[in-house]
Amino acid sequence: MKTSTTKIDIQKASRSKIKNVDFNNLSFGQVFTDHMMVCDYKDGMWQTPTIKPYGPFELDPSAKVFHYGQAVFEGMKAFKDEKDQIWLFRPEKNFERINKSSERLAIPAFPRDYFFTAMEELLKLEREWIKKGFGNSLYVRPFVIATEAGVSAAPAKEYKFMIICSPAQAYYSGEVRVQISEKFSRAADGGVGFAKAAGNYAAQFYPTNLAKDEGFQQIVWTDASTHEYLEEAGTMNVFFRVGDKLLTAPTNDRILNGVTRDSVISLAKEYNIDLEIRRVSVKEIIEAAKSGELKEMFGSGTATVINPISGFGYAGEKYELPKLEDSYARFFKDKLTKIQYNQAEDKFGWRYLVK
Amino acid sequence: MKTSTTKIDIQKASRSKIKNVDFNNLSFGQVFTDHMMVCDYKDGMWQTPTIKPYGPFELDPSAKVFHYGQAVFEGMKAFKDEKDQIWLFRPEKNFERINKSSERLAIPAFPRDYFFTAMEELLKLEREWIKKGFGNSLYVRPFVIATEAGVSAAPAKEYKFMIICSPAQAYYSGEVRVQISEKFSRAADGGVGFAKAAGNYAAQFYPTNLAKDEGFQQIVWTDASTHEYLEEAGTMNVFFRVGDKLLTAPTNDRILNGVTRDSVISLAKEYNIDLEIRRVSVKEIIEAAKSGELKEMFGSGTATVINPISGFGYAGEKYELPKLEDSYARFFKDKLTKIQYNQAEDKFGWRYLVK
Ligand SMILES: Cc1ncc(COP(=O)(O)O)c(C=O)c1O
Ligand SMILES: Cc1ncc(COP(=O)(O)O)c(C=O)c1O
Repeated sequence: MKTSTTKIDIQKASRSKIKNVDFNNLSFGQVFTDHMMVCDYKDGMWQTPTIKPYGPFELDPSAKVFHYGQAVFEGMKAFKDEKDQIWLFRPEKNFERINKSSERLAIPAFPRDYFFTAMEELLKLEREWIKKGFGNSLYVRPFVIATEAGVSAAPAKEYKFMIICSPAQAYYSGEVRVQISEKFSRAADGGVGFAKAAGNYAAQFYPTNLAKDEGFQQIVWTDASTHEYLEEAGTMNVFFRVGDKLLTAPTNDRILNGVTRDSVISLAKEYNIDLEIRRVSVKEIIEAAKSGELKEMFGSGTATVINPISGFGYAGEKYELPKLEDSYARFFKDKLTKIQYNQAEDKFGWRYLVK
Repeated sequence: MKTSTTKIDIQKASRSKIKNVDFNNLSFGQVFTDHMMVCDYKDGMWQTPTIKPYGPFELDPSAKVFHYGQAVFEGMKAFKDEKDQIWLFRPEKNFERINKSSERLAIPAFPRDYFFTAMEELLKLEREWIKKGFGNSLYVRPFVIATEAGVSAAPAKEYKFMIICSPAQAYYSGEVRVQISEKFSRAADGGVGFAKAAGNYAAQFYPTNLAKDEGFQQIVWTDASTHEYLEEAGTMNVFFRVGDKLLTAPTNDRILNGVTRDSVISLAKEYNIDLEIRRVSVKEIIEAAKSGELKEMFGSGTATVINPISGFGYAGEKYELPKLEDSYARFFKDKLTKIQYNQAEDKFGWRYLVK
């Protein structure tokens, strides 16, 4: 399976920064490891992947990424088990997704073999940066940007595919209250919402700032045409528990097909949790909240794994959710993290050993 | 009016590249002048604007522009008249629009005085790059990018506002045939379509490539919810002439409020051309094309001024437009360019002298 003939050019950092890092005090995505992977696309092909010391690089002021936003990314995590083995979680999904995102943004696909070989070489070099223990991980960020110079609105002919890594602790974002969007939208039908396109994120900052002013940390987006159906949050898919039934929206071209979402769905089936994947209306959730049937809401995403939502706002009203002993959120988080850290059987073949 | 106390830090290039440039053979947006303007935002404020030699600059691989697409831009032109005076066309509109775009992407507003003083200083330095004669101009590209390092999806605390300039000749893009979009969309209701956000452009490349495969150069976008109403093209607003009546869509939060569009509307009023600003349905345009009532379609935008459209495609059918002697497209292009090059009276006060 993993025999690779991909040549990687490796330039090691002369000294490591790791001594300066306080691993008990990490803010998400602020500290980066000693190396990065860079692979240039030019003359119609991806060149030799290079691993080199992490650091700034030069771009022309007219580089297309600055002007036309040709940029996509991925987010995944590497975990270390008690035997010092390094694991990724379903990286095949992220590989497929970045190329799907790239296709929608007219960026050339990145070869599978380059992706896996370069990422594994990088992770092996950064082995010391991955700390054992529940909650600790190395956040891996592959991304592609259009580097060609020139301000004409057409796909670039030159790109950089890069992978950078940032050590992370358990992501505890505190009580998360979300606002259900009534006016602003994240993505259009026939647009790029299903892609992890850079521009999708900046578009959410302003409405999210307004929501923050009203005491919410995130927005749950609704469909842009009617604002009647719940879609996803800024960096998480969303699940609703009504009675003992779990609900989540189907993916479509506006919604990111989350790896964590997909895993929750598989686990729900495995553990006979009643699950419906269908359009979820704002109306039914409000009614369920009022009748007491709405027991939980939670988000799913690589950074937080499962993020319980403690309340939400809609049309000027605020709704609080009960605190449950037997929450689905906790159940899924427990199941997922045990698989990720190689502490439970991996029935679905989700773990990927870096060796 | 123009008394300014803005300090600009100017570092002149030691030698000019202008000798190497063939001004009779310019591709749009490929050659840049000797200098650029850079102004950094940090510690909560815009620092001193700097004009320095044009060239690449360094960014951290985790700079937010690469990951979350916080980037907006503008496009305007400087013209030289027969007396060697340099003119801009309605730059106040571009200034207002870039700050509107910035607001929607949670980027701090740029001060008016910095914008005008820095741009004028830059244009005066690049005076030789602006060639006299109809069609020649200097394309001016202000843009803002989020430069702060760190992969967390939140607005950056550091930015660069830059202005780069590229000499341009008359933009003749040949016969333009457009495809009316039936499935893909450019922007969502409640989204960022009205902003000149970088991500809006990359999102159009893939559908435009598909349209090109079918023999169309551009797409005319329809509303994302129903695809029944015509909105705008990739970098142009669109006008339709049915009989002697001119139609164009109203601006909304999906459509860029074009400076050229606004100018065409003013000219139409001035010259008593019957104009309706209202939703234009695909259906009525198809019917008008079939009955022969559809006499013209054209796009309006800074790069091309007015771009006649010679035909369009919809639902697998192709429609050709007649070639008119007395076209509105030619009329507006003539009126606009004469004002731009200081060859006609400027009733509306659109010209802005750089001095
Ligand atoms: C918009 C959006 N939705 C959902 C997710 C969750 O996807 P995943 O579970 O693959 O991390 C993410 C982030 O990764 C995201 O950016
Ligand atoms: C999406 C879009 N629509 C319309 C226009 C035309 O606007 P303006 O006339 O201000 O150049 C542009 C380009 O400038 C654009 O990018």
